[in-house]
Parts: sequence; structure tokens; C-alpha cells
Amino acid sequence: MSLFSLLAGKPLATSEERAEHIGPISGIPVFGLDALSSAAYGPEAALTLLIPLGVAGIAHIVPISFAIIGLLAIVFFSYMQTIDAYPNGGGSYTVASENLGETAGLLAAAALMIDYILNAAVGISAGVGALVSAFPLLQPHTLALCLAILLLLTLINIRGVKDTGTAFLIPTYLFLGSLLVVIILGGIRALAAHGHPVPVIAPPHLPAVTSALSLWLLLKVFASGCTAMTGVEAVSNGVNAFRAPTQKNAKRTLTIIIILLMVFLAGIALLCRAYNIGATDPTGNGYQSVLSQLISAVMGRGWFYYVSIGSILAVLALSANTSYADFPRLTRAIAQHDYLPHVFKIRGRRLLYSHGIVALVGFTGALLIIFGGVTDRLIPLFAIGAFLAFTLSQAGMVVHWYKYPGKGTRQRMIVNGIGAIATGITLIVVLVTKFREGAWITAILIPALILLMAGVKKHYDRVAREINIDRPMHVENLAHPLVVVPLDRWTRITEKGLRFAMKLSERVEAVHVDAEECRDEVEQMWQRNVAEPIQIAGKPLPRLVFLPSPYRFVLLPLVEYIFQLEREHPECQIAVLVPELVVKHWWQTPLHNQRAQLLKLMLLVRGNQRITVINIPWYL
Amino acid sequence: MSLFSLLAGKPLATSEERAEHIGPISGIPVFGLDALSSAAYGPEAALTLLIPLGVAGIAHIVPISFAIIGLLAIVFFSYMQTIDAYPNGGGSYTVASENLGETAGLLAAAALMIDYILNAAVGISAGVGALVSAFPLLQPHTLALCLAILLLLTLINIRGVKDTGTAFLIPTYLFLGSLLVVIILGGIRALAAHGHPVPVIAPPHLPAVTSALSLWLLLKVFASGCTAMTGVEAVSNGVNAFRAPTQKNAKRTLTIIIILLMVFLAGIALLCRAYNIGATDPTGNGYQSVLSQLISAVMGRGWFYYVSIGSILAVLALSANTSYADFPRLTRAIAQHDYLPHVFKIRGRRLLYSHGIVALVGFTGALLIIFGGVTDRLIPLFAIGAFLAFTLSQAGMVVHWYKYPGKGTRQRMIVNGIGAIATGITLIVVLVTKFREGAWITAILIPALILLMAGVKKHYDRVAREINIDRPMHVENLAHPLVVVPLDRWTRITEKGLRFAMKLSERVEAVHVDAEECRDEVEQMWQRNVAEPIQIAGKPLPRLVFLPSPYRFVLLPLVEYIFQLEREHPECQIAVLVPELVVKHWWQTPLHNQRAQLLKLMLLVRGNQRITVINIPWYL
Repeated sequence: MSLFSLLAGKPLATSEERAEHIGPISGIPVFGLDALSSAAYGPEAALTLLIPLGVAGIAHIVPISFAIIGLLAIVFFSYMQTIDAYPNGGGSYTVASENLGETAGLLAAAALMIDYILNAAVGISAGVGALVSAFPLLQPHTLALCLAILLLLTLINIRGVKDTGTAFLIPTYLFLGSLLVVIILGGIRALAAHGHPVPVIAPPHLPAVTSALSLWLLLKVFASGCTAMTGVEAVSNGVNAFRAPTQKNAKRTLTIIIILLMVFLAGIALLCRAYNIGATDPTGNGYQSVLSQLISAVMGRGWFYYVSIGSILAVLALSANTSYADFPRLTRAIAQHDYLPHVFKIRGRRLLYSHGIVALVGFTGALLIIFGGVTDRLIPLFAIGAFLAFTLSQAGMVVHWYKYPGKGTRQRMIVNGIGAIATGITLIVVLVTKFREGAWITAILIPALILLMAGVKKHYDRVAREINIDRPMHVENLAHPLVVVPLDRWTRITEKGLRFAMKLSERVEAVHVDAEECRDEVEQMWQRNVAEPIQIAGKPLPRLVFLPSPYRFVLLPLVEYIFQLEREHPECQIAVLVPELVVKHWWQTPLHNQRAQLLKLMLLVRGNQRITVINIPWYL
Repeated sequence: MSLFSLLAGKPLATSEERAEHIGPISGIPVFGLDALSSAAYGPEAALTLLIPLGVAGIAHIVPISFAIIGLLAIVFFSYMQTIDAYPNGGGSYTVASENLGETAGLLAAAALMIDYILNAAVGISAGVGALVSAFPLLQPHTLALCLAILLLLTLINIRGVKDTGTAFLIPTYLFLGSLLVVIILGGIRALAAHGHPVPVIAPPHLPAVTSALSLWLLLKVFASGCTAMTGVEAVSNGVNAFRAPTQKNAKRTLTIIIILLMVFLAGIALLCRAYNIGATDPTGNGYQSVLSQLISAVMGRGWFYYVSIGSILAVLALSANTSYADFPRLTRAIAQHDYLPHVFKIRGRRLLYSHGIVALVGFTGALLIIFGGVTDRLIPLFAIGAFLAFTLSQAGMVVHWYKYPGKGTRQRMIVNGIGAIATGITLIVVLVTKFREGAWITAILIPALILLMAGVKKHYDRVAREINIDRPMHVENLAHPLVVVPLDRWTRITEKGLRFAMKLSERVEAVHVDAEECRDEVEQMWQRNVAEPIQIAGKPLPRLVFLPSPYRFVLLPLVEYIFQLEREHPECQIAVLVPELVVKHWWQTPLHNQRAQLLKLMLLVRGNQRITVINIPWYL
């Protein structure tokens, strides 16, 4: 077993495909990590913006969180309907392009691609950021740690979907379990203390008020909090990764994910108010994350605290995994419509679309390197893509129900319509409030990607028009080709080339480029070694042609002669025999001239449809 | 006219070769620069070692210079005889290998290659060193200046021998003229003043005595002074670059060069004693070169001084040119004996052995970069190669006269014998006195080069044994090959491939690798588009073969099937048709799969003599 097989797993046959499908237990880590891990940074991002309001600001987190939960509910019902309508996977791209047309589809495709890449980058950098603030000694190695985790995730993922689920099961359920325990225990204590529980470890004091409440501030808080919603479209996009009954399993998984996320968002908001927990300055010295404060307040700093914090770190980093599961499926779907190179359609040895993974890793690595692995710089670019995709998907569903009317489609249209409007408004809020901080980068990248995809499509269409035929084969004029053999000294290689030429056709021309002015010798050699035995055997004698070469070029006269032959013989194909010495070791290459390679290249570059190159390898 | 042609000159026909030959006027700059420019650093290197002896030391330069002149005379007569015996160029390599056997020839070859490369590096770095000590502001750019001059020389040289001579004519004759004027005028004044002339500008005072005279010191002084002799073998090596009468012109050129060099060495030595000029500390602040002191003393610091110093700078840098003229000729001669790759035998568009120039530039550039462009570090490596080549060449000539006895060969044997002994003793002196300072590097490099050349020879011999035949062609069994065509969708490319296969042979197999499990579709397509029209036309129907591919690999099953076919059909050749899409622009490459390239590579790497690849290009 090779090292590669050991790392990447043995190849899987196409017939093993069923076994690779998953249920809700594995589905939550695979498709839900992104959405669920958002609970670790969404509320914190909102609370950070409330710091200037002091203690009074904390209270505002509750209504804003419930607004987000409401939005989440709308999106949930919308996506449940999408799963019903698209049992083979109804990602925003599919839904938008099928219902809203090509341009909307490309818009969704570009938005999603950027979103998945950013998700991977943000997940990894947030995980490393948390790790680094726990162990400040690691600070100088932030980028190296990010890239190491990227590599690790890649190795885990090229093993395939099922193995991936297994690897992520433990940290995911540890994270979910510990957060649920904290919320339930904290809730009970708060109720018992009539809303004013005593924290086991008191959270740090909040700074003084420095700013007044304003609508713009609340909008920015809401926009930041909305990062908690990224990733909820993953299930609808990957429906066909579930085992039968496919749709039922997918819907069950989506339901569990959304309910858990709602419980987390509501629980965190309420407990923050009860325990008076606010965000601390993320750039300051006394920084402590909101979840860390919350767990300390409810549970103290025993083993439970460290297990929880550890699982948060793991889950944040692993949330990048949603991108690994969905990005390749997305690029494959786009490639099936000819908007991306066809390699994205090829399934690798482990039944994965490996080229998609390679592209994802490449772009994510580039992003991490460009932004130095710092989450803060990546976040503002992030939510745009997700909400653009939500909006297009819901709008597409409205058209879908309109086009295929049936029982209950009117209600479904209304549900999706509400979803489209709600997510559309959120998109505008996010775009406006975060434009200066980085959203403009996404706003430039999306049209650029669309132009690129349109260009790819145009190329494929032109190729298809050129090579496709719907008629049977022409069978007339199957005359032998005219075979050209370059001739130099008399060696076994020359003999092999000439013999092969004579096997192919009775029309053979041996061509000698006379760069060294030794025409007589070549003629004698030809007469003795070739002409005589062939005449005795009564076979057709190849023609011997001499090409002058005053400037000692060898290939140029040959190539020109071949093109001249091609013009003079419009009735037949020209085959050029290229004898080639194949050395045993690469370092022997400089010892032999590379004329064969150059000739092939020149004929290929300057060639035309009627000239064909035949390699005659000679193995040393 | 392209930029390249403008820089490198138009291509020259083989028939224009005569016109490219040179006479003594151009021959002195081309083959004599190295030897003549040595006058600018040889005496100085000797005088530098005499500094510890103070004013008394200067007197010793006269006997040592005359010893070197005596050695030069011996070498001169030896080389005149070599030109007689080898009218096509009798470099040390040719003479040693023809007369002393293979190993001695390789020893000479290695010594000369290293010597030529070092000569180029030393010439350039010495010129830049002089320039930099005149303009200290340029000091930090020493290496960059060295590489810029290397590039300039290369451009001048790839224009060809004759143009090169023209470019170097003016600085060379300016250098020779001004040095002659200084020596003659200085000599007249010294005679007129009874050996004690008054300098126009007095040389700096010499430091106090710090060391006593010893034989070891005198030997070191002699060894350093011998660097003045490097390069005198150039003419004998390049005899066939001269125009008819070739030998006469070559001998005339050599005579002029040697006489000039002797005059320079004697004149500089005598004038230094007369004017009391010694070397100044080359690492100290008040450094001034010996030639600069001499010219100031005789002529003062007018325009003449600056023109002379300028021409010395130019000639030092240009002395590297001898290497450009001779290194490619040497590598060509070695390659003709199969000890170096055969590319060194190819004459380029301007009748030059361009690959030799490329190799020279590469190694010289590497040396300059490794040693930072500092002459002092290069000099100790230098003279070994030259004197090793001298010795081998003279010893070879002794054997030559012994092997071809005739009128006067006895005397000639004695002349060359004296040359061999004298240069051999000098070689030992140089090796011993300079071993620790860098000569050991050369002593390691020479055997390494010999091993490399022996390895190259061994490879060529094995290839020759394998491919050479001295029998006429076999003409039996010229049956058509078995042609394999990979089959996918029905396109114009498929049609072209199948048609070409049927043109070549009546035994065709169309092979479909069933990676996507669509056997029925392919069978229907085949029946409709291929089988029916061929049956109607009454031609032989190709066989359709399906290969299963449970792991979705496309190329592996195909390659394995081809090898299986090859084993099953020992009687015929297998031709594999590879249809290939050729895109118009390189950036379209990632849009199409590279399976054709990969298949060709796999067949070439794992292939054997009976499998042939046929490219069917389809131009978009």
C-alpha cells in the first residue's frame, strides 16, 4: 500500500457509491457545522458593536437575536420547500438558473463560490485566532497554523464524505452537548433566581458609556449578527448525499440544525442579559470571548470549561468543512452547464470531485496568505455572498411554484416570497453597513467571476459547434496516407522507421536535410542498404528526397517541405514519422538532440488538419 | 527584421564561411587579447609579493621577468611547431589525445575548459575591479557590473568571429600603442639620464623592509608572474579561423603577439627599476596600479594618461573574449570524440558553436556569482589549468615527432622537449606555491570533469553499439499494424480518428473505456454512425471493444489493454491513435482534458519497441 493510499484511502468503485451516503447523525457534522459554529461568533460580533453603550447595551442583544431567529425561521421554511422541489440537490445555483434564467444563475454561482471559499478561510482563521489568544506564544505562527489546518482538512476530505463525517462526529457533538448543558443549567438557575443569578465566576466589568443609541448602530449590530446565519443553505444543496429516503433524511437534518441554532442564539442572548455579559474589546489586552465568559459564569472553570472551549476551537476550525463538502458539488453543477472547465465533473478515486477540492484549497490558501490569516479582515467580505444566494434561491422558488402550479403551491409561493423579501432586505442592510469595511471587494469579485464563467461557456459552445456532427461516418476516399520519414545515418532506428512507413503505406518519402553537405554518402548508403533489398523483394521503393540547407537549419527545411507536400497533395493525408530515442534516465536527456520533440511541436503549432505525426520510439 | 536578428546579426550560409575567416590584424584582438592583457596584471602580481623587501625588492623584478620571457620564448617555438604539425587547429586537447592517449587528452580537456572559464571570469572581474577602484561609488555594484559585461560580451560574440574582431580592434590597438609609446619614450629618457631619469610625477614612496629575501619568496614571485603567460596557446588552438594561407597567417599572428608581450614584460621590468616603481598594497587606501604609476612617471597626467588607463580597463574586460573564441571550439572538438554532449558540435545560424557559448556564459556567470566578482579570490585557481595544458601539449608534440620522423624532426623533438620540461617545472612550482590559496579547487575539479566526460563517452558508446548496423534493411513481414483507436462520443474528432485508422490498416480496434457505465448508448451510436455505413460500403468493419472501469480511471485500463494486445499479437506492430484537441490560445488549455498528453506519456514511459503512438491533432 503506497503512502498516498494510506493517507487518502483505497480507491472506491462506482458500484460502492450507495454505501457512501449518509443519514442525519453524520449529516449534522457534514452539512451543519458551518451554521452551528456560527453561534460561537455571530452573537459576539453583535455584542462587540454594542460595547460603546455600556451595560445598557447588553439588553439590546435580546430583540436583535430574536429578529435574527425570526429571519432564520423564514429561511428554514423556505429551504424545506426547496428540498421538496429539488430532490437531487437544490442549491441556490440550480434554483436560480432554472427559474430566473442564466444571468441570475451565474450571479448565484459566483456568490456561492466566493461564500464557500470565505467560509473555509474564516472558519480556519477563527479557530486559529481562538487558539492563538489562548496561547499567545503561538501568535507569530498564525499563518503557518492556518495553512497546516488547511492541509489537515484536505487530507481528511480526500478520503471521502463518509470518513469525513466520522472524523467530525466527536468534536461536533461535544460542542453541541456542552453548549446545551450550559444553556439549560444557566436557564434553570436564572429562573430560580428570578432573572438575577449569581455567576460562579463574575464576568469582567463593562467599560463606561461612550456613544448613544441610534438606528444606524442597531442596523450594524443586526448585520454583524447575521453572520450567524451563514451556512444554513448547505443541506438543500447536498440533498443527494443523504441515504434513502433522501428527502426525508435531508429535511430531518435541516430541522435539527435550525432548531439547535435557534436554541443557541436565544439561549446565549437571554443568558447574556441575565448574567450581564458583554463583549470585551477584541484588540485589547483583557480580551475574553463571550462564550468563555458565559461558560465560566454558569459552570466555573473546571474540566467542563476546558472541554467546552476545546470543542469550540475544534468546531470553528472544522466548520470550514462545509465548504469541502459543498464547493466541489457546486463547481461540478456549474461545469455541467459548461460555465467552468470540465475537469470539475470528473469524480476521483474516492468518488469525490477532487478538482473542486484542489481549487477550493488553492483559493482558500491564497486568501489566508493575502489576509495573513486574520479573521477580522475577512468577516466583512463574508455575509454578502450568503445573503445574495439566499435571496436568489427564494426568488427562484417563487417562480418555480408559479411555473408548476398544483395543490398548495399558492401558500408555498407566499412562504418563499416572504423569505426572498426578508433576505433581500438583509442583503441590502449588510451591503450598505459593511461596504467600506470590505464588502466592496466581494462586490467587485462577483461580476469578474460572472464574466469569466461566461467566457468559458462561450468557448465550450464554439468547440461543440465545431466538433459535433449528427451524421454517420464518411467512408469514401480511404486511400493510404503519404508517409514522410526523415533520414539521417543508417541505424537500427532508421531501419525501424522505414519499415514502419512501408507497413502503413506504399507511398513513402525518405527526406534527408543536407545541412552537412554529404549528399553522396547518403545516396550510396540508400542504394546499398535500402534500394537494393527492396527491389529484390519486389516491393514499391520509397522516394529519396534531398533538401538543401544553406544555413544548416535541420528542422525548418523539413517542416517547409512537409507543408509543400500537403499543398501539392490535396487528395491524401500526410503522415510524418518521427523517430525518437527514449533514454532510460532523465539525466541522459541532454546527451541526445531534442529534434524529435521540436519537430513534433513545430508540426503541432503550425500544423493543420491533414498532417499527422507518428512517434517511433526507440528504447535504449 | 526581428529584435533577435538585429542583436545577433542575420544568419550566415555555410557557403559564406570563407568570408568569416580572419587575418593577423583581426587575429591579434581575437586570439591575443588574453595573452597581451596579462601584461597589465602579471608584473603587478609579482611586484606585490616583493613589497616586504622594500626598495631593494624592485631590482629582483628584472631577472624574474627575464626568466618568464625565456620561458615564453621556449613556449613560443614549441607552439610554432604545433601550428606546423596541426594545420586544422592543434589545441592541447587534440595534441595530447592524439599522441599521449585518451587519459592525457581528457586531462588536457578538463584543464583547458577550467582555464577558459576562469580566464573569462578573471578578465571581467579584473576590468570591473580597476573600474571600481577608479570610481569607488560603484563598489556595491561590482557583481552586477560583472554580469552586465558578461551579457554585453555574449551579445557581441553571438554575432560571429569577424564582427567580434572589429568590435575589439580599437581598444586593443589603443592599449598596444599607448603602452609601446610609454616604454619607448621611457627607455630613451632613462638612457639619456644614464639609468636614473627624473619622473614627471614621482611614484609613491615604498614602505620599509619587513622581510628578508628567500628562495621560497622568489619562487612565489615567479609563480605569480607566470599568470602573464596565460592565453598564449589560443592561436594554435584556433588555426582554422584564419584565412588562407592559414598556417602562415596563424604563425605571423602568434609571432606578433609573443614579441609584443616580451617587449611589454621587459619594458615594464626595466622601467620599474629605472624609475624605482614598486607595487602598492592592493588592500590599502593609497593603492595605485603599477601601470598607472609608470605612465604618470613617464608621461605625466594629461589626456594621454586617461586614454591609456581607459584602454587598459577595456582590454582587461575584453580579454575574456579569448574564451568566447576558443571555449566553443574546444567543446566541439571534445564532443566530436563523444566525451561531451553532441549539441556542442552544432554550428548555429552565425557559423558559431552556440551551445559552447551558452555553456561558457553559464559557468562564468556561476563563478562570478560564487566568488562575488572579486579577482583576488579567482587568481590562485587560474594558472594551473594553463600550465597543465602547456605541458601536455609539448609532451604530446615530442611523441608526435617521434611517431612521424622526417627531416628536422629530431631538432623539433628537442625544442618541444625543452618546452615540456620547462612548463612542467613551472606547473609544479605554481601548484606547490599556490595550493593553499585556491589551487586545490582546480586540483579537485579536473578529475571530476574527467569522470563526467568518461561517463558521457560510455553512454554514447553503448548507444552506438545498440543502434548501429552494417547490414541492409530487412524487407520481410511488412504486414499492416494493428491500430487501436480510443472511442468516446461521436464527434468530428472521432470520425477523423476512425477514418485515419482505416486508411492505415484493415485491422482496427475501437476501444471504449466504460467509466461512466453507458455501454448501451455507445453501442447504439456505433451501430448507427459507424457499422452501418461501413457495411454498406463493403469495407472491413473495425472491432468495438469495451473495457470495464469500476474505479472510473480512463487511461489505466486503456494502457493495460494495449500492453495485453501487444503480448497477444507478437507478429505485428501496435499503433495507438491519440486524437488531440489543439487550442488556439495557451490559456484555453485548462478547459480541455489533457488525457491525450498523459496517454502519450504513459505509453512512452512504460512502452516498448512494438508500440507506436499516432497523434491526430484537431485544430480549433
